[in-house]
Amino acid sequence: MVVQVVEVSPRDGLQNEPEILSTASKIELIRRCVEAGARRVEAVSFVRADRVPQMADAEAVMAAVPRRGDVSYIGLVLNRRGLDRALAAGVDEVNCVVVATETFSQRNQGASVDAMLGAWTDIAKAAHAAGVRASVTVAAAFGCPFEGDVSPATVGDLARRLVEGEPDEIALADTIGVGVPTQVRALVSAVTAAAPGVPLRAHFHDTRNTAVANALAAVEAGVTVLDASVGGIGGCPFAPAATGNVATEDLTYALHRSGHPTGLDPTKVIETAAWIGDQLGKDRLPGALGRAGWFPADPR
Amino acid sequence: MVVQVVEVSPRDGLQNEPEILSTASKIELIRRCVEAGARRVEAVSFVRADRVPQMADAEAVMAAVPRRGDVSYIGLVLNRRGLDRALAAGVDEVNCVVVATETFSQRNQGASVDAMLGAWTDIAKAAHAAGVRASVTVAAAFGCPFEGDVSPATVGDLARRLVEGEPDEIALADTIGVGVPTQVRALVSAVTAAAPGVPLRAHFHDTRNTAVANALAAVEAGVTVLDASVGGIGGCPFAPAATGNVATEDLTYALHRSGHPTGLDPTKVIETAAWIGDQLGKDRLPGALGRAGWFPADPR
Repeated sequence: MVVQVVEVSPRDGLQNEPEILSTASKIELIRRCVEAGARRVEAVSFVRADRVPQMADAEAVMAAVPRRGDVSYIGLVLNRRGLDRALAAGVDEVNCVVVATETFSQRNQGASVDAMLGAWTDIAKAAHAAGVRASVTVAAAFGCPFEGDVSPATVGDLARRLVEGEPDEIALADTIGVGVPTQVRALVSAVTAAAPGVPLRAHFHDTRNTAVANALAAVEAGVTVLDASVGGIGGCPFAPAATGNVATEDLTYALHRSGHPTGLDPTKVIETAAWIGDQLGKDRLPGALGRAGWFPADPR
Repeated sequence: MVVQVVEVSPRDGLQNEPEILSTASKIELIRRCVEAGARRVEAVSFVRADRVPQMADAEAVMAAVPRRGDVSYIGLVLNRRGLDRALAAGVDEVNCVVVATETFSQRNQGASVDAMLGAWTDIAKAAHAAGVRASVTVAAAFGCPFEGDVSPATVGDLARRLVEGEPDEIALADTIGVGVPTQVRALVSAVTAAAPGVPLRAHFHDTRNTAVANALAAVEAGVTVLDASVGGIGGCPFAPAATGNVATEDLTYALHRSGHPTGLDPTKVIETAAWIGDQLGKDRLPGALGRAGWFPADPR
């Protein structure tokens, strides 16, 4: 079964790095990811530049990404103002975030879960009216840094309410990297029941070394779209020394060796990881494949 | 289902670290692991001191480990001379290694697979005659650095021949960290068919970020004993910058959160990892839990 890997390093990765890259380097990162085979890229977010300075040049980045019919660029938006910017910048898809717990939603988004549900529906309808795909991520779906465990029933209830925006896709995000495969199965099952027919995407962080296990469990449960970040760049805002997004090269290795082609070229992904590591001044990336090498030696 | 974690840091971990610890520090490591809940410990190897200087003080270590009825100490042996030393030192179990591929066997053990099969049978019979348990590890069972892929049929054939030594346990080792869960299932199935009734143990390296996925797959396939090394110490002889043994704290997190108690105290395991990291002069350990913290915050 083919699995699509959505490259999120340009947005979720870079947004959580202390170093701010030049616009040219961001465009080069996206170009290299596409060259390595990425066909969906979370490229930018349209949020307040004073809150997220890493994404202040979203319009300039989108103006220069390689436009080709087979690559879809995703912009993160959280309100109508962001959506208007995203549409003007020519994104192919917008993605909105709704947090699974009230405390995290208030602290991270500055809004209640109900308010974000309303924003999502509003954004989705306007995006669809403009002919742009709209997906929604359920953040902290596997656990919350403030409220602890999150039950599959809670996520299922949320998914039921997300359906009002007619999502092209619902993404289940383990934002703080606490999930395990049993939870993946329970969550996929709960959300499938709550939002029948809506394609699912999964977004895993490797903060506690469970991301690859979770990703493979998600695929076995029928999820065919997974997020990842080259090199594993991005880190974890809740644990400064810890890992964030699962590395694209690690996920690619696990998928290819498990019989799931991704269309990605492992050599180019690993090279891109090394390149972005240099750009960010990192002497060590979370991704394991860059240190270990592919197996068998030639990935093709 | 309860899963037993065999702590291998004192042998497989330390043997692959450039720094040689004092005998007192090795004993302290073992004491701390037992205090954290380890009930089987791969404590030492009885091999040639000129080849493996890290293990030269095996007798002195074994003379000072905390002896208690509920803890079993394993000594690695590769020939009769090693067995005699192990028995004299009072180990509770011996473990022998047979490599799945000819090239790796010749290069690593300096002996053919056939020769090592003979050595295993000889060791096992003598150990059993002395009232000591004897287990055998199939090294490179998931892939070989020289020969590449290893088929489950190859490992099954080997397991069939290992039965002559009446193993108390067969351990399947991903020595270079290349396996994925589909392979785990195929291997467990092949070895169970080839050596019916022999309990299985699995030994995963996290070199390519698949160890936790493989461990959980092994447990789902019925394996109830897994090897791990606190902090993930040990490294990988085939890729100097890469990770070796899966970290005990990472495995414990994945198991506990998946509903598999281990008897280990996560806080003490993480403290022991930090302690051994200091002893080895490492500013960064492979284990993720020490950087990320348990979830939810209180592991008990």
